[in-house]
Amino acid sequence: MTLDEEALMYHKKWKGKTKTASKVGEINDHTLAVCYTPGVAAPCWEITADPSLSYEYTWRGNSVAVVSDGSAVLGLGNIGPYAAMPVMDGKCVLFKEFAGIDAVPICLDTQDVDEVVAAVKAIAPSFGGINLEDIAAPRCFEIEKRLKEELNIPVFHDDQHGTAIVVLAGIINSLKYTKKDKDNVKIIVNGAGAAGTAITSLLVKYGFNNIVLCDINGVLTEDKKNLDDTRKDLVRKINPEGMEGPLEEAIKGRDIFVGVSAPNILTPADIKAMNDDPIVFAMSNPEPEIMPDVAKKAGACVVGTGRSDFPNQVNNVLAFPGIFRGALDSRAKQITDEMKLSAAKAIASLVSEEDISNGIILPKPFDKRLKDAVAKAVSLHA
Amino acid sequence: MTLDEEALMYHKKWKGKTKTASKVGEINDHTLAVCYTPGVAAPCWEITADPSLSYEYTWRGNSVAVVSDGSAVLGLGNIGPYAAMPVMDGKCVLFKEFAGIDAVPICLDTQDVDEVVAAVKAIAPSFGGINLEDIAAPRCFEIEKRLKEELNIPVFHDDQHGTAIVVLAGIINSLKYTKKDKDNVKIIVNGAGAAGTAITSLLVKYGFNNIVLCDINGVLTEDKKNLDDTRKDLVRKINPEGMEGPLEEAIKGRDIFVGVSAPNILTPADIKAMNDDPIVFAMSNPEPEIMPDVAKKAGACVVGTGRSDFPNQVNNVLAFPGIFRGALDSRAKQITDEMKLSAAKAIASLVSEEDISNGIILPKPFDKRLKDAVAKAVSLHA
Repeated sequence: MTLDEEALMYHKKWKGKTKTASKVGEINDHTLAVCYTPGVAAPCWEITADPSLSYEYTWRGNSVAVVSDGSAVLGLGNIGPYAAMPVMDGKCVLFKEFAGIDAVPICLDTQDVDEVVAAVKAIAPSFGGINLEDIAAPRCFEIEKRLKEELNIPVFHDDQHGTAIVVLAGIINSLKYTKKDKDNVKIIVNGAGAAGTAITSLLVKYGFNNIVLCDINGVLTEDKKNLDDTRKDLVRKINPEGMEGPLEEAIKGRDIFVGVSAPNILTPADIKAMNDDPIVFAMSNPEPEIMPDVAKKAGACVVGTGRSDFPNQVNNVLAFPGIFRGALDSRAKQITDEMKLSAAKAIASLVSEEDISNGIILPKPFDKRLKDAVAKAVSLHA
Repeated sequence: MTLDEEALMYHKKWKGKTKTASKVGEINDHTLAVCYTPGVAAPCWEITADPSLSYEYTWRGNSVAVVSDGSAVLGLGNIGPYAAMPVMDGKCVLFKEFAGIDAVPICLDTQDVDEVVAAVKAIAPSFGGINLEDIAAPRCFEIEKRLKEELNIPVFHDDQHGTAIVVLAGIINSLKYTKKDKDNVKIIVNGAGAAGTAITSLLVKYGFNNIVLCDINGVLTEDKKNLDDTRKDLVRKINPEGMEGPLEEAIKGRDIFVGVSAPNILTPADIKAMNDDPIVFAMSNPEPEIMPDVAKKAGACVVGTGRSDFPNQVNNVLAFPGIFRGALDSRAKQITDEMKLSAAKAIASLVSEEDISNGIILPKPFDKRLKDAVAKAVSLHA
């Protein structure tokens, strides 16, 4: 049986990978009176008097809505809300299994920015946090920005920031392994969608001073037409050498390549044109920008991909469970840049010196220390 | 410990009575690949090609959103979305325990009709049905009407129709007990909110031909100012004798009193002014319109209330679990009047002739036959 066949078989059997369950125990006349009418009036009155008590008497302190408009689902594209459900549902399973969080898949029947914002704001009282997922750029930037401004619970677009946090963690350890200096490395990020934009932004905030960001047309520069505000602001802060031109020019002399773009767009010659001991994150999924063995043969010193069957998997699951665990437990109103940087350092710190000396730059997704380490790092800045 | 104290203690312990759980089992590299990336792409593609397959590969065939705007919560009034959560959460527990349905509490941060409709439409792809709850009249009528027109999944305002179904079931058996004839009985419904309006409407559809509907100002007549369309239409169909005046006039000579109004508004004299062997449903909660012992002493032949500590509890839980179980299992697009009438008859049929001869006119909420009997009655008309 192929993986696809197995996945179809199990999804048909599961009919939803997430289910609800009751914490009340056996329902009888007495428990019904306690959990429903008339007893339920007591917590209702308490929350009426002090809405913050919703964290004491409801699941708000432990619940997250995993919200998508189905516009950029995995590598599948704009498949809409119905087809996006299995992905959001799977994410909810990971929230539960990796962080004990009650997560609910919410796929929206609209891709209009105002309508998405209105719908998420409307349902927000039911949850303690909002995990945005698989929303296409540049719409995702405005949706997240507005929700962060207008809601007082954490809003986190995982495709952007989860990816950025894990990439930064991997880069921190790659620098140790290659003995490169943060202040002197040159970075190229290829792919200027949600993930590429957020990665670049977080790398800037970490202090890298020489980054170029490319899209399919080459280096992104300020004069590019129709550039949205988020990327316009970002492009102004990077590319100190004012580089232009296609990827194969821009990659020359770079120390680090971060790809969130398309399969097989890097050649061995591109790797060879990079600086000595190049660091390559080829995260196009399932087909990376260059296969790890090919990159290694061409001289890559460290290679990370999005895949579990190669070493150094850049997997958001390293970050998002602990991020929300920390944000919920500390009742953070926002997930700030400081929290993201702190989380990346915490993830990086879980890899031993010995592992780093062997080229292992990220922990495994199943590392039991991850959730608590990341949650603590987030809580420190709440 | 009082019930209130116990309810607060348990709600604080539970921190949400509903939780999520995973159906996937242990998460390892393989199950992660099956339930999430890359395996999840297979069901996503299938649903992209045929959206109805969302019922096969996601929880849509078994999930309901319990949606409120917090505007008319139990007897507590307009307490808003945060304070409404424990009630919706409790309802979700009942959905799970009585019908195995995965229900999610969704409390909306808006009480604007257009915004409520937009929010529910937006999240609809994530669920198999919408249970509206505790939304004030007359707004609830328009919200439900529009959602029924614009969505292709069942939408059911339980405060209206759940109550109406159970009241009708109780009346069916009360007629048997009192040997009154459906075509000759005169009914008075007191309380013209969501429940009273829906009860009156369902009684008309069942075939009762002499009903008056009262609100706090007495008999509702067509010329009442500011009457919304729903109630205007209804009032035209009832009150064949053109009655007017206050409750204490209108109740004279009536066979059946149905109260969804306010505590202690009926006196023994009102009961005595009714026809022989009067049937009294005094469902104001927790304080009924008249206490059962007082009503009995004044001559009431059958008394039902909303309370579990008196006989003949009119409890929506007799209806809604089976209603949604039947609607989901038969993939009904709507919950129709035929389904509601059929459900009421099914509930009534579960009371034995012997019990009826002893004045027991409704099954107990914990009657194990309820869910299947109601679900079957609903499915028959899907």
